Amino acid sequence: MGSLNLKIIYRFLGITAILNGLFMFVAFPFSYFNEEEAAAGILIAGIITVFIGLLLYLLNKPKSTNIHKKEGYLIVTLGWLTLSFTGMLPYLFSGAIPSISDAFFETISGYSTTGSSILTDIESMPKGILFWRSVTHWIGGMGIIVLTIAILPLLGIGGMQLFMAEAPGPSADKLHPRITDTAKRLYLIYVSLTFAEFFLLKIAGMTWFDAINHAMATLSTGGFSTKNSSIAYYNNLPFVQYIIIFFMLIAGTNFVLIYFALKGKVRKVFQSEEFKYYLFGILGTSAIIAVLIIFYQDPNLQTTIAHPNVYGDTESAIRHALFMVTSVVTTTGFVSADFTTWSFFATAIFFALFFTGGSAGSTSGGVKVVRHIIMLKNSFLEFKKALHPNAIIPVRYDGKSVSQTIVFNILSFFIIYMLIFIMASVILTFLGLDFISALGAAASSLGNIGPGLGSVSPVDNFAHLSSTAKWFCSFLMLIGRLELFTVLILFTPFFWRKS
Amino acid sequence: MGSLNLKIIYRFLGITAILNGLFMFVAFPFSYFNEEEAAAGILIAGIITVFIGLLLYLLNKPKSTNIHKKEGYLIVTLGWLTLSFTGMLPYLFSGAIPSISDAFFETISGYSTTGSSILTDIESMPKGILFWRSVTHWIGGMGIIVLTIAILPLLGIGGMQLFMAEAPGPSADKLHPRITDTAKRLYLIYVSLTFAEFFLLKIAGMTWFDAINHAMATLSTGGFSTKNSSIAYYNNLPFVQYIIIFFMLIAGTNFVLIYFALKGKVRKVFQSEEFKYYLFGILGTSAIIAVLIIFYQDPNLQTTIAHPNVYGDTESAIRHALFMVTSVVTTTGFVSADFTTWSFFATAIFFALFFTGGSAGSTSGGVKVVRHIIMLKNSFLEFKKALHPNAIIPVRYDGKSVSQTIVFNILSFFIIYMLIFIMASVILTFLGLDFISALGAAASSLGNIGPGLGSVSPVDNFAHLSSTAKWFCSFLMLIGRLELFTVLILFTPFFWRKS
Repeated sequence: MGSLNLKIIYRFLGITAILNGLFMFVAFPFSYFNEEEAAAGILIAGIITVFIGLLLYLLNKPKSTNIHKKEGYLIVTLGWLTLSFTGMLPYLFSGAIPSISDAFFETISGYSTTGSSILTDIESMPKGILFWRSVTHWIGGMGIIVLTIAILPLLGIGGMQLFMAEAPGPSADKLHPRITDTAKRLYLIYVSLTFAEFFLLKIAGMTWFDAINHAMATLSTGGFSTKNSSIAYYNNLPFVQYIIIFFMLIAGTNFVLIYFALKGKVRKVFQSEEFKYYLFGILGTSAIIAVLIIFYQDPNLQTTIAHPNVYGDTESAIRHALFMVTSVVTTTGFVSADFTTWSFFATAIFFALFFTGGSAGSTSGGVKVVRHIIMLKNSFLEFKKALHPNAIIPVRYDGKSVSQTIVFNILSFFIIYMLIFIMASVILTFLGLDFISALGAAASSLGNIGPGLGSVSPVDNFAHLSSTAKWFCSFLMLIGRLELFTVLILFTPFFWRKS
Repeated sequence: MGSLNLKIIYRFLGITAILNGLFMFVAFPFSYFNEEEAAAGILIAGIITVFIGLLLYLLNKPKSTNIHKKEGYLIVTLGWLTLSFTGMLPYLFSGAIPSISDAFFETISGYSTTGSSILTDIESMPKGILFWRSVTHWIGGMGIIVLTIAILPLLGIGGMQLFMAEAPGPSADKLHPRITDTAKRLYLIYVSLTFAEFFLLKIAGMTWFDAINHAMATLSTGGFSTKNSSIAYYNNLPFVQYIIIFFMLIAGTNFVLIYFALKGKVRKVFQSEEFKYYLFGILGTSAIIAVLIIFYQDPNLQTTIAHPNVYGDTESAIRHALFMVTSVVTTTGFVSADFTTWSFFATAIFFALFFTGGSAGSTSGGVKVVRHIIMLKNSFLEFKKALHPNAIIPVRYDGKSVSQTIVFNILSFFIIYMLIFIMASVILTFLGLDFISALGAAASSLGNIGPGLGSVSPVDNFAHLSSTAKWFCSFLMLIGRLELFTVLILFTPFFWRKS
């Protein structure tokens, strides 16, 4: 490995910016045909972004197209930053979000598919801007698919190589810059599912504009809504909520499994350990929460149910339990009701769910179910090893034994995740949040969920944070989204050493 | 390994009970000469305990004195339970604590050197009972020394073998039932230090009764005080507080290092990585907290300083910062002031400190500093491995490379610790605690600290918990004290399988 091939990095960032700018042109008509003032701002943002992208692309003709690991890491992190710094231009130029820290927060919350918002009155926003907001989610989700399927396995990060049979494993030093055929098929699935949900939401009673926005925010496990009260707005349209539950479940599933399912190999789906734990975990936890909503009276909590007319009957309680559990586990962050008002027990369960995450190879963030499976199995084996220290018993997953290297990587990932969570909570209290809100904001940002606890609860937003706190949460969203290592490795001294 | 050698287990438990009963006879005169009604109860408890112990001892004559791992695990866990179930008899028979769940909680809080209390008016208790309470700490501390120095390394648990050069490592299957010479020397140090602190506290102005109790509670990193307001009672005796700070620091240090220091090998002490991180970590964090107390006004917190006349000058702020940081890191749990009233930032820092713990080979509980060192070094190496997947770079500690097995064990320990903490918090909200109090009680019980947050803050106690919650916290204290594995392994099916 020689020095960094900067030209190829710039070229990739150029392509990223061009694509991003083209998407702004798609957002433009939503404002233009609604005769919104924001139209001009979105158009200018698009032109500037494409122009920057073209400059980066054309001015950098690399002699070699070889991409090594270091370039890979830089492309991923700088790619997300390029998206975010250009993606905030529509907000700034349209005047919809005049402050840079607010605009950047909202943008990276979009691309990281987090869905935390600094907007206090979403419904007053121009349609072009609302659409752009959903598009940032959707692009972020696409980015994550290519990342987890085509790039991370090659970088040997996060134990992701565990799930991708076609990945050559962590010994491959060179990256293939082409998106594999697999990734292309997965894109097709992503696009088709978005259209399917859009269509169903329209039929179930949403306006076509709300339907397309919510479809994009669902498939990316993002969570931006076009309504101030998020999906609670549709509390008298239960089918809308069931459709969203279904598609959140899909979006939090490994896309490779969805591909198998669509090819009729349903047995293969239910052979996946991760999918079984993911699905039955959600259903089981939802059942517990539903029982709590219906029967449990918290002795400490003074507040009562937040949304009247919501918990009228059993169906409603089950629906809201299922909706919120799915929303948090898949790290979507849509809100049908405020779980923090249910009971402290429910709040604690939800807070624990903040650390599960969806499936690997999906658009969801967080720790991911498979890592928990490996961790639990390994913990169990540690007990065996305590009794039989000389026995060599590998962790088995999906019928195969998992290499020590991958288990090590997964354990380290979780430990780094928890240490960052603890440090981030401490820092957020310093930046002005109370203790509970700091825990919630840290876990939610790092896990790309959206809502948190306390002053950033499901019915609140992030507007009241200081601008430093907003930048800090933006950083957490970025490192959480990119599986920690990808970003944090850039802060190690040896990354920048010539080898 | 054949079937369990139950007779030798019972014999050990018998010895434990006899020793425990003899200590009750030591507590008896404190009530007798003060003409307290509790005297008879303590005496009867002692007689019964010794009697039970003699029965267990005499009725079980093992044919073989070989102790294998399984017997080792059972002896450790059942030993602590024997202590606790007999140790609560003085409370029950004297009528000082009439409820069994309360008495058991207070007793295991003693032996586990946690120091959480269900007493609401400590100062009204009979002196014999207060003395007995401190003795449970002191016995627990002794137990931990023999456990970490002589037993755990042989069981290959918790990476403890890392620190004990004389331990034959995890491959040894047989346990040597004798306490090694090293352990005897360490006992001598433990006893001498207790007397030294007692002497100094007396000189600094404590009554001799308070001095002996606080000395026992310090050296064991326990935290039971004979005063309702704990060490805040001595806020106008700064020297008392400085003496306790010094001995808490000692008690949280690896006793092998103290042995070296007393033999004049001070250089060896400062060559220990763990000691350096431990000492400078405490000093550094205390400095931050002191600055916060003096200069920082929390924008959210409505309450002001809890103890008037305490923070009058800079010295006082530094002293309380140092006291509380040392108290929490060493898991002692003495209280000179209520840190939860300082600021949310301070509260968050203290809550993070709940997860550090003192040094391995000390009487402190929790995760322990050395595990954090290994985890951080290993995390850093994971980044290196991401770039150079084929390089084999071992974690180095104290100049030696650490075996993969030990690193694995340490990572697993922390993950299990955090998972138990999260689950325990959820369960405690179900048992009636609010969210913050549940987090505090879970972290505090598991880490053997004492005070928590919310309704179990440093100025509150555990009396208001439901009896189920008290039993649950008792369980957490036990598994935390015995390094998780020792107890939890008894719940695995393969432990009970014949091999």
